Amino acid sequence: MDSTTSNGSRPIGVFDSGIGGLTVAAELRRLLPQETIYYIGDTARVPYGGKSQATIERYSVEISELLLAEEAKMIIVACNTASALAIPKLHATLPVPVTGVIAPGAKAAVASTVNGHIGVIGTRGTVRSGAYERAIHALAPEMRVTSQACPMLVPAIEEGWLENDITDSIIARYLGPLVGSGIDTLVLGCTHYPLLKPALARFLGPGIRLVDSAENCAHAVRELLIQQQIGAPENAVGTLRVALTDASDGFLPVAEEALGLSVGNIRLAAVQR
Amino acid sequence: MDSTTSNGSRPIGVFDSGIGGLTVAAELRRLLPQETIYYIGDTARVPYGGKSQATIERYSVEISELLLAEEAKMIIVACNTASALAIPKLHATLPVPVTGVIAPGAKAAVASTVNGHIGVIGTRGTVRSGAYERAIHALAPEMRVTSQACPMLVPAIEEGWLENDITDSIIARYLGPLVGSGIDTLVLGCTHYPLLKPALARFLGPGIRLVDSAENCAHAVRELLIQQQIGAPENAVGTLRVALTDASDGFLPVAEEALGLSVGNIRLAAVQR
Repeated sequence: MDSTTSNGSRPIGVFDSGIGGLTVAAELRRLLPQETIYYIGDTARVPYGGKSQATIERYSVEISELLLAEEAKMIIVACNTASALAIPKLHATLPVPVTGVIAPGAKAAVASTVNGHIGVIGTRGTVRSGAYERAIHALAPEMRVTSQACPMLVPAIEEGWLENDITDSIIARYLGPLVGSGIDTLVLGCTHYPLLKPALARFLGPGIRLVDSAENCAHAVRELLIQQQIGAPENAVGTLRVALTDASDGFLPVAEEALGLSVGNIRLAAVQR
Repeated sequence: MDSTTSNGSRPIGVFDSGIGGLTVAAELRRLLPQETIYYIGDTARVPYGGKSQATIERYSVEISELLLAEEAKMIIVACNTASALAIPKLHATLPVPVTGVIAPGAKAAVASTVNGHIGVIGTRGTVRSGAYERAIHALAPEMRVTSQACPMLVPAIEEGWLENDITDSIIARYLGPLVGSGIDTLVLGCTHYPLLKPALARFLGPGIRLVDSAENCAHAVRELLIQQQIGAPENAVGTLRVALTDASDGFLPVAEEALGLSVGNIRLAAVQR
């Protein structure tokens, strides 16, 4: 058996602080149906936002080690906070390729904008970290970036209010000033947000392009698989396996339905709290 | 110096998983201005809801020990999750009196209702725990209790949307069915919720009485101080001291303003994460 085939049959490991990263898993399933995805949501320690860098590095390494124990051939950090703070540590620690959601989202935003003014929405923690600004400016220092924290969106999504007049009002409240500022591209800087794409697109209209970090992360993963020659054979049939570090709180069915995912049995994985 | 005076000069220790419990501190300041309050918000490990009982007991004991190191003469658990899960452990472990927010709220609700039908609102975790139902039924088994989880209210409060049309819509969405079910009393089963009292009262109208757990907790503390003879002298001038286990995320100014609290310098207290 050559190393490509042997690697090919191994799963892609994906983790998030919770369930939101399933949007990344769903994009991976769509784009790479031959790949098996092993997803771990660290629901016992959610949210990562607001915790110190050292803590988030430690959590990220611990969850990655659980994925490596499942033979993961690559680690995808489907969490904006961990992508912003733990990627260098993971690169230095793990024996497999690592990618996050921020760099692919920044790259797609720079490719998308025509007027050079990019909007970014995310949690308070992600916006405060300035991670998207830094990633965008590393690629194109002349870009103007306007960020808006939208702390009410994750709770609305987790409540299942995806097509809902209250959520529409919240979107208008947050995005109105952003649209007024003249952006032509909006980065969804939180892995939950793709579940609101229809509602967001309705408010933004056709003049503003949405950059979905989950989708762009999946494209980055495909490139990395090709480049490292560790892809599954084209005719393989992948599956999605999900483990959580604590019992879910009811958002999982919302995500499953909205993403058209069949998650099946959820495993429980133990971590220190 | 006799033991009453010696105890009297010691602070009352109050803790919560975050900032929400400041509503309890504010009621204590209003009712007992002679008492000094030492408040610790465990913002490094917020939220407690969703974590296991063993974890919440451990966190509660750790924070209580920090308060005892400040000479606290009594521990107030200003957190619904910890009140529901950790009070027996704290009673068994700590050398000072302990009280939480659930028992006083349940007692006030039973005293308030005329038609015997009590509503309870809280976070998903508090509602799922059934702690208010149990506490109400322990006092009056014939009561009918209808509970409603309101997971969008804490984010709205933390966003500072206290007088806001979106928050009014969220309240109507959650409370409409509860009002329709015929309750005559509504327990605010989350320490954040007193900040929405004006908005909640506007929606409920004069026919439904609001039971504020923070206010009732403060009354329970006054009774306990008298009963244990550990109150500060009537002519003493108390203060409020606040420590957090991680830097605050911006909600503190909202709470300070809405509660009319002067928090001053915030200390940082270290805990294991």
